[in-house]
Amino acid sequence: MPADSTGLDPEISKRLTRDERGLFPAITQEFTSGDVLMLGWMDDEALQRTLTTGRVTYYSRSRNSYWRKGDTSGHIQWVREVRFDCDGDTVLVKVDQVGEACHTGKHSCFDDNAVPVVVTPDDQR
Amino acid sequence: MPADSTGLDPEISKRLTRDERGLFPAITQEFTSGDVLMLGWMDDEALQRTLTTGRVTYYSRSRNSYWRKGDTSGHIQWVREVRFDCDGDTVLVKVDQVGEACHTGKHSCFDDNAVPVVVTPDDQR
Repeated sequence: MPADSTGLDPEISKRLTRDERGLFPAITQEFTSGDVLMLGWMDDEALQRTLTTGRVTYYSRSRNSYWRKGDTSGHIQWVREVRFDCDGDTVLVKVDQVGEACHTGKHSCFDDNAVPVVVTPDDQR
Repeated sequence: MPADSTGLDPEISKRLTRDERGLFPAITQEFTSGDVLMLGWMDDEALQRTLTTGRVTYYSRSRNSYWRKGDTSGHIQWVREVRFDCDGDTVLVKVDQVGEACHTGKHSCFDDNAVPVVVTPDDQR
């Protein structure tokens, strides 16, 4: 999808690096707690909607469609800040999260999924 | 690369969902501050090295090689926690960051790259 069809500011568009599908990862972080809530994907249109509506909109790679977080669950993500990383291929979205971010009912998609770390800094320093 | 050649625990391996290149995004977050520092990519081997050496190792998509953060810059990332998200296609790595995480000299790759948000929650609620 050409960037100029989405209404996304060309100055923003040219800072973006997209993958071969036109997508880039979006990390969603809770503004107040700093908790990383989830990772979704966006294209230019999803980013434009996120910047201009105040609510986070992702692009679903499995359903090939846009989804505005909270439309079915009520678990809205209100946009506080949006940042690109240094090479423009990832976006960080800081939000006020209504309810739980994860469809499993957890606050964050990263709750309860710890992977055992064999060696920690305390072993080495 | 078959998962079993990396030494990665099969119980961990089977929780992972990889893209068509065998990769998955890794969000790196500072353990003490909660700051999101960067997003890199891993495959099974990079994850196994991260879990077993105490230092974060990524897979470079542009160079097609592993890179252990800090080997050239000294800006080591010591691993504190590793978590998968609910569907196992993203990893969150919490670290003690030595020096700056970004090659530009910034603490985080998301510093100084704000994107203007047109509508904020305060406009709507």
